[in-house]
Amino acid sequence: MTGTVYLVGSGPGDPELLTVKARRLIETADVVLHDKLPGPELLESIPTKKREDVGKRAGGEWTPQEYTNRRLVELAEAGKTVVRLKGGDPFVFGRGGEEAEHLADHGIEFEYVPGVTSAIAGPGVAGIPVTHRDHASSVSFVTGHEDPTKDESAIDWAALADTGGTLVVLMGVGKLPMYTDALLSAGMDPATPTALIERATWPDQRIACGTLETIVEARDEAGIEPPAITVIGDVAATRDRVSAFLRNGVETETDGE
Amino acid sequence: MTGTVYLVGSGPGDPELLTVKARRLIETADVVLHDKLPGPELLESIPTKKREDVGKRAGGEWTPQEYTNRRLVELAEAGKTVVRLKGGDPFVFGRGGEEAEHLADHGIEFEYVPGVTSAIAGPGVAGIPVTHRDHASSVSFVTGHEDPTKDESAIDWAALADTGGTLVVLMGVGKLPMYTDALLSAGMDPATPTALIERATWPDQRIACGTLETIVEARDEAGIEPPAITVIGDVAATRDRVSAFLRNGVETETDGE
Repeated sequence: MTGTVYLVGSGPGDPELLTVKARRLIETADVVLHDKLPGPELLESIPTKKREDVGKRAGGEWTPQEYTNRRLVELAEAGKTVVRLKGGDPFVFGRGGEEAEHLADHGIEFEYVPGVTSAIAGPGVAGIPVTHRDHASSVSFVTGHEDPTKDESAIDWAALADTGGTLVVLMGVGKLPMYTDALLSAGMDPATPTALIERATWPDQRIACGTLETIVEARDEAGIEPPAITVIGDVAATRDRVSAFLRNGVETETDGE
Repeated sequence: MTGTVYLVGSGPGDPELLTVKARRLIETADVVLHDKLPGPELLESIPTKKREDVGKRAGGEWTPQEYTNRRLVELAEAGKTVVRLKGGDPFVFGRGGEEAEHLADHGIEFEYVPGVTSAIAGPGVAGIPVTHRDHASSVSFVTGHEDPTKDESAIDWAALADTGGTLVVLMGVGKLPMYTDALLSAGMDPATPTALIERATWPDQRIACGTLETIVEARDEAGIEPPAITVIGDVAATRDRVSAFLRNGVETETDGE
């Protein structure tokens, strides 16, 4: 009998931010396929014997994504109950959509189990609500992996700036200078509050704050490294107002303002 | 001694989509302040004696939000451990930012506990990933409560259309005709796949599918009612490709295409 694949979101990294359902499925699954994104603390909470790392893989004929797709089908066809554990939510920049399509194309039943996305939780643990009645009626999530100076970039930074809402950039540490420039060129206020949250909810979480104009300097002073979330918008100033009473275990902060 | 307030996301409604941390905090809290948004199944899983409904309240001198703010401070000052349980994530259109500010202004310590947002989980349980490498490099969340024909609307629907990414509208059942018109006027393709997901993850979850042009008819045929999520974008077509193998317990569907 063919097994079922559960596309499961791990949340941002704190093992307690797994859902009750994710925790149950991990406990009962035969195999948990994962990469590094769920974070070390969470992965260490899963018995080694059922863990299979598809992020790091000794060379082969497929890309990591092709290998993962193939492995999911192989395990399900062998009758295994499989948890495909993905950082955050499986359907937010996680290629979960592609995995779902691949499973359906191969006749494998699957279930989507949503998770807490770091795109919201990251700003949140820094005291920054991604929406706010006084400051932001919308929030846009975008990946910072693409080079905005390339013609083939699918991201319209000017349109994103024009929404007037909060912008949250995932995986955007390295290209921070490029997309902040693109937003400034599009006319966004250089004084727009901006923050970086590295390893949100992990024990070594770090935060750097500044403005659209100063955040690159703040990043460099704090030595912020991936994985991190960038949040751009007036909501980022909420942190100043609430952080003295916020108990989310923030250890380090560099203020680049 | 002053108590602590936990601003806790309940997730979309399935009690198993609470985080492990939310479940623990609800169990240990003295009081759980809530409205109707976490959904009946989840609320019924909390002992009646510690529940306090701040959504429905016999008339008084404050708005519900003012009453909630005041009550949070009052309970914390009485030394209580308080869970403020909010549907989805506290910082996504939940006025959690305002509650955090109110607590900080009154010297009350608080912690933010993120939750699974229905803005992602809603489309997801219908087989729709809000981002997809082939179809959407960004996703924007916006509230459908505002009337887009009013001058004071803070939402720039034309800019949102221009992003080229997925649009997710929360609380947008009633004003669906108005903002789909605004998007069509902004030049968005009338054939853009569009879906409505009512009561995502609740036992009586319902889905209606169509295009930007036909979704109002699909809503009416299916009798979709709040609370529901609207998802607009090429990603919505993923449902057609995967739904035969998707095991997320969808009971009813109307196809308006």
